[in-house]
Amino acid sequence: MDTIGRIFRVSTFGESHGKAVGCIVDGCPAGLELSVLDVQRELDRRRPGQSQVTTSRSECDEVKILSGVYDGKATGTAISMIVENQDADYSKYDNIRDTPRPGHADLTYRMKFGHVDHRGGGRASARETIGRVAAGAVAKKALEGMSIQSIAYTKAIGKITSDETAKAAMKGMNDLIDSNPVRALDQELAGQMEKAVLDAKSMGDSVGGIVEVVTFGLPGGVGEPVFGKLTSALAYALASIPAVRGVEFGQGFAAAKMLGSQSNDSFEYKGDKVVTKTNNCGGMLGGISTGMPLIVRVAFKPTASISKVQESVDLLTKENTKIKVDGRHDPCVVPRAVPVVEAMVNIVLVDMLLIGGFMKRKSTQVIP
Amino acid sequence: MDTIGRIFRVSTFGESHGKAVGCIVDGCPAGLELSVLDVQRELDRRRPGQSQVTTSRSECDEVKILSGVYDGKATGTAISMIVENQDADYSKYDNIRDTPRPGHADLTYRMKFGHVDHRGGGRASARETIGRVAAGAVAKKALEGMSIQSIAYTKAIGKITSDETAKAAMKGMNDLIDSNPVRALDQELAGQMEKAVLDAKSMGDSVGGIVEVVTFGLPGGVGEPVFGKLTSALAYALASIPAVRGVEFGQGFAAAKMLGSQSNDSFEYKGDKVVTKTNNCGGMLGGISTGMPLIVRVAFKPTASISKVQESVDLLTKENTKIKVDGRHDPCVVPRAVPVVEAMVNIVLVDMLLIGGFMKRKSTQVIP
Amino acid sequence: MDTIGRIFRVSTFGESHGKAVGCIVDGCPAGLELSVLDVQRELDRRRPGQSQVTTSRSECDEVKILSGVYDGKATGTAISMIVENQDADYSKYDNIRDTPRPGHADLTYRMKFGHVDHRGGGRASARETIGRVAAGAVAKKALEGMSIQSIAYTKAIGKITSDETAKAAMKGMNDLIDSNPVRALDQELAGQMEKAVLDAKSMGDSVGGIVEVVTFGLPGGVGEPVFGKLTSALAYALASIPAVRGVEFGQGFAAAKMLGSQSNDSFEYKGDKVVTKTNNCGGMLGGISTGMPLIVRVAFKPTASISKVQESVDLLTKENTKIKVDGRHDPCVVPRAVPVVEAMVNIVLVDMLLIGGFMKRKSTQVIP
Amino acid sequence: MDTIGRIFRVSTFGESHGKAVGCIVDGCPAGLELSVLDVQRELDRRRPGQSQVTTSRSECDEVKILSGVYDGKATGTAISMIVENQDADYSKYDNIRDTPRPGHADLTYRMKFGHVDHRGGGRASARETIGRVAAGAVAKKALEGMSIQSIAYTKAIGKITSDETAKAAMKGMNDLIDSNPVRALDQELAGQMEKAVLDAKSMGDSVGGIVEVVTFGLPGGVGEPVFGKLTSALAYALASIPAVRGVEFGQGFAAAKMLGSQSNDSFEYKGDKVVTKTNNCGGMLGGISTGMPLIVRVAFKPTASISKVQESVDLLTKENTKIKVDGRHDPCVVPRAVPVVEAMVNIVLVDMLLIGGFMKRKSTQVIP
Repeated sequence: MDTIGRIFRVSTFGESHGKAVGCIVDGCPAGLELSVLDVQRELDRRRPGQSQVTTSRSECDEVKILSGVYDGKATGTAISMIVENQDADYSKYDNIRDTPRPGHADLTYRMKFGHVDHRGGGRASARETIGRVAAGAVAKKALEGMSIQSIAYTKAIGKITSDETAKAAMKGMNDLIDSNPVRALDQELAGQMEKAVLDAKSMGDSVGGIVEVVTFGLPGGVGEPVFGKLTSALAYALASIPAVRGVEFGQGFAAAKMLGSQSNDSFEYKGDKVVTKTNNCGGMLGGISTGMPLIVRVAFKPTASISKVQESVDLLTKENTKIKVDGRHDPCVVPRAVPVVEAMVNIVLVDMLLIGGFMKRKSTQVIP
Repeated sequence: MDTIGRIFRVSTFGESHGKAVGCIVDGCPAGLELSVLDVQRELDRRRPGQSQVTTSRSECDEVKILSGVYDGKATGTAISMIVENQDADYSKYDNIRDTPRPGHADLTYRMKFGHVDHRGGGRASARETIGRVAAGAVAKKALEGMSIQSIAYTKAIGKITSDETAKAAMKGMNDLIDSNPVRALDQELAGQMEKAVLDAKSMGDSVGGIVEVVTFGLPGGVGEPVFGKLTSALAYALASIPAVRGVEFGQGFAAAKMLGSQSNDSFEYKGDKVVTKTNNCGGMLGGISTGMPLIVRVAFKPTASISKVQESVDLLTKENTKIKVDGRHDPCVVPRAVPVVEAMVNIVLVDMLLIGGFMKRKSTQVIP
Repeated sequence: MDTIGRIFRVSTFGESHGKAVGCIVDGCPAGLELSVLDVQRELDRRRPGQSQVTTSRSECDEVKILSGVYDGKATGTAISMIVENQDADYSKYDNIRDTPRPGHADLTYRMKFGHVDHRGGGRASARETIGRVAAGAVAKKALEGMSIQSIAYTKAIGKITSDETAKAAMKGMNDLIDSNPVRALDQELAGQMEKAVLDAKSMGDSVGGIVEVVTFGLPGGVGEPVFGKLTSALAYALASIPAVRGVEFGQGFAAAKMLGSQSNDSFEYKGDKVVTKTNNCGGMLGGISTGMPLIVRVAFKPTASISKVQESVDLLTKENTKIKVDGRHDPCVVPRAVPVVEAMVNIVLVDMLLIGGFMKRKSTQVIP
Repeated sequence: MDTIGRIFRVSTFGESHGKAVGCIVDGCPAGLELSVLDVQRELDRRRPGQSQVTTSRSECDEVKILSGVYDGKATGTAISMIVENQDADYSKYDNIRDTPRPGHADLTYRMKFGHVDHRGGGRASARETIGRVAAGAVAKKALEGMSIQSIAYTKAIGKITSDETAKAAMKGMNDLIDSNPVRALDQELAGQMEKAVLDAKSMGDSVGGIVEVVTFGLPGGVGEPVFGKLTSALAYALASIPAVRGVEFGQGFAAAKMLGSQSNDSFEYKGDKVVTKTNNCGGMLGGISTGMPLIVRVAFKPTASISKVQESVDLLTKENTKIKVDGRHDPCVVPRAVPVVEAMVNIVLVDMLLIGGFMKRKSTQVIP
């Protein structure tokens, strides 16, 4: 079940220490300008080894586009992209072959499939998200043509939580976010967040956090009734990201504590357009977009890989045992998850825009 | 997009004040014993007019099974079920024809479709969930055959939050939950929750809350990699319920504040079976079940319908205006949402069990 | 798996002698004018008891629209339609409970599901196609708005085969086709075809035939690459009709005997538009429409129900036995299959037009 | 729409003269032994340049498996396979950039997408079928474990048609079929078929034909009701192969001319098992397998590429023109289509076996 989407369809493939990872992007609007650089730029944001707060695994994650693009433009047919694994180091995984790491999918994949590629988590590794980010780069380009932009950033790391939410007026937001190693929008808290990660790292531990994503420019009416809600599609896509423990929209879980008179957003005319005075609903009512910014948050648990000795089992001898996970790992997944969250939101939006007839499959320069 | 599922597939239909609502359930295991009573029992839990904390709309919600069941057992082909609307009262909706109610889908459906059935929210009405609960009753029966049981209950209403979580050992849990009008598991807080609802109601206001659902007996290995994760499927299904603002698994958003050494669940042998000592992950690792109880929570916003005067717009005159929503409405959706959440979880589980080959499509009493 | 389509999605339900049959039509363009008469007109063409060449089962097949239409227009949400079974006569089916009828699905459903509704073939009965024809009526209306029209007719019955193929210029084609009981386009051969059916009937036998369908007005560029071809979608939809044994496009199987220089259709300009001089390809190249008429043919086997004594088995005693099928049945399925074929083609076309962005989901009279 | 299947899902990618072609195979049973040789063997049967009757394009079509296989066995996760294009020769396609070749998809892709990779037909090239054959090799291995085998062969080329149909008892059938360049089962007619191809080739022309595929060992009960019929799934898959003009089952179009008493297959007991005395239905009743051999035929039109001068249009100048297609091409697609047909049937069968619960997703050597 490695495919998401109905018209704009993304399938990913690849394991952490196999030959390559990548994706197929199906249903891209024809005529869309797309270069390797467009994709590489996004992959570089996800790449390991960017700073002290990320893993030291060294991968340049260089992407190749194998199909679906001709003469610098998408042909509307399947775009396949591939990134070869370079810094595969199998030796470090021998001790986990039969001893599942707590917090990882080692045990559940073993239960499900019997035969597994255990090296670095195999298919369950977050390295799988390379395919998502590459596909998201295509989606981002398609959205640019409609002036739709999603901005993801770190909202919280551990107990450090920012109240700041992206506004359409903020200039150069992306540069701002990438200017600090934790990818916080809130420059004042960025340092504290970084310290929270490094503190955990120094203890051989890890820490969780929250990513928020805001989408500007989405027209009203996007999303479908009942099981085709934009909320559903987003929840599905975001919950599929490794380490995600929760997804919320607008006020989210806080809405549970509110009164209706506080939670409801009043309508008013702004010129010819109906807007909401507040945006507690996060830009979606009945699962369909209002035309206001989408606001979604995603909770990530702390990285499962920690250096501390943990309790586990030996599946061969059927005895309890201890495990110490070596390998290289991020002390906090959040900074590198930011571009993944952004990618998944963009992928969902392009699909919903195509389903709803807001975006066209065809370039405009048609001859016959 | 009114269908959910890949093998066990549920399609719902119907509007709040149309002729009928209902569903088709496709892919049900053949030979499953199923009676009208099995379905009616669940619908009665969702029915309006159960108590002071629910709407006064009077509907007996009597279900008919039109197909797919013969001689008391499912034939494996499409089960269609229908509930006729009785207490439709159109007159109350004339004032909202062109004035969208804050917090409702009135505006977004209008943006999307142009032509809408505005009466009581039409297709976006929570009355649509009748089809879900009827389908969930079929799923529940199928799960019973594998000794899998989901228990949903009210975790929080407004600011009253319970710490109690269902344990497999708790006898008669369902009766306990239904013994109080808010459907709390926590009998001590049930009264306070009820008061929170009635307080809001007395002010012409409404209040939100949280539903928790725990599933016992699910084997390990259920769920698929990447975009087929059990977490994704649940998030998708639950986010499609009207008024849902968030979904979380296990520790959920609280995991964002934890360290890895706190969040990771240690493994140990319990007899021949590997279990986790704690269950912070809510019974899912890498999106695949561990064999421990599933734990999922869903945040509901306060009912959008409140009696207070609210600000809105007149879409015909294009002027700002006020609106007072009459109609009949629940001051809190949570108590009646409990069986809906349970239904959606059960629907997802049957589908994932069929996809994974854990459940069979065929009865055992086969002759040739 | 009772659903077809990706955006315009049709799910059918119901058994031959259950309470009702019907369908849900999801993804219909909002604002489409749709009345019960639009649907009833098509059902009347499929209805039993129309003439000597059809079954004597007496069903008025009166349709009710339960949802998705408000104020005479589709709302864009799920349209559910229902036809109650009237002339159910179970007694005639006792002898087939454990003795499968040759040529029917009795045995294979038993193998698959174990527990089956054997009355009149249950779910496998051609009575299931009522849901298809009702859904097809919706599709037909949607296509009318784009001036696209599909015309189906009997091409062959037994050994009587017509060379005539519908041309766009033919006035009143539908009336012509319905003016003879076999629904032949070729008025000269209609009598011979009718005689072929009655001859078979008089012998207690049945006869097969071929339905051809031609679609006028479809723009070029409809259909998707690889697994989304229009040919594939049509083949899938048409092969799902009971008793279908083959599907072909344009020259079809005859193309196997041709040379490339005979088979290829030359291109030329007709005004600003590129057309093909001939239409051997049946209006599709690479699975995508050329803008010329679509031409598709469907082969139907003779009705499986015949009055002659046939050899079968008793599944309880596990012995060979004989069976004589009483019941009421069509001596040839083709005349009543004509509207079913037309319906399936129209359903596929609306879906492909929506996928390709040629048709919109939204009515034009949008206010905000 | 480059994906087929519900559980066993195949997505292909790649253009005729792009960097590479390939596929992702999702949902493969875990633990299945799979080597590069298993795949290469099938690709070698499809490879160009095998004999005088195939194209002279020189491609070794060497496959790499990038993911989803570890330690010689499938892990149950996405298997990605890639074949790099070697003998790309763009220069020959400059003259078709704006002049569509009759019988090809050049015009319709241009109509649909506006921007196309015109080189060698781009995505519409039969080179796309490499991904299908690679995926089919995986399916074949999975079927071997259940002793299910599909045998495809050339039934007809031009006017030379064989009456022979594969029987389960025939030893070494595959070697027999591959022992003649046209891949006929009928050794006596193989020479005449080869001559028909070479005659067409010598005239600068091409010729069509028919491929038949018979599947042995499929259990009864495979396939789903209504829109999940095995016939539908096969028709969909086979009609998606380039140049296919028709698909038929069992007696196929000939059934249209038969009487019911001739067409119906009598049932009888053969030991404990119910069989049909004849197999006119091609092993499927009501779209579900009977347990007898499946018999399916596929009609291919003559290769669209011929050396003769043909009439076309210049899409830039908007004038009628002539075109002479150089390039390298098969004078008959049928011999190389044989392994493609076999692959598609096997892909469909694995998916239907998984959907129906006949095949398991999991290897048997499970530890915990």
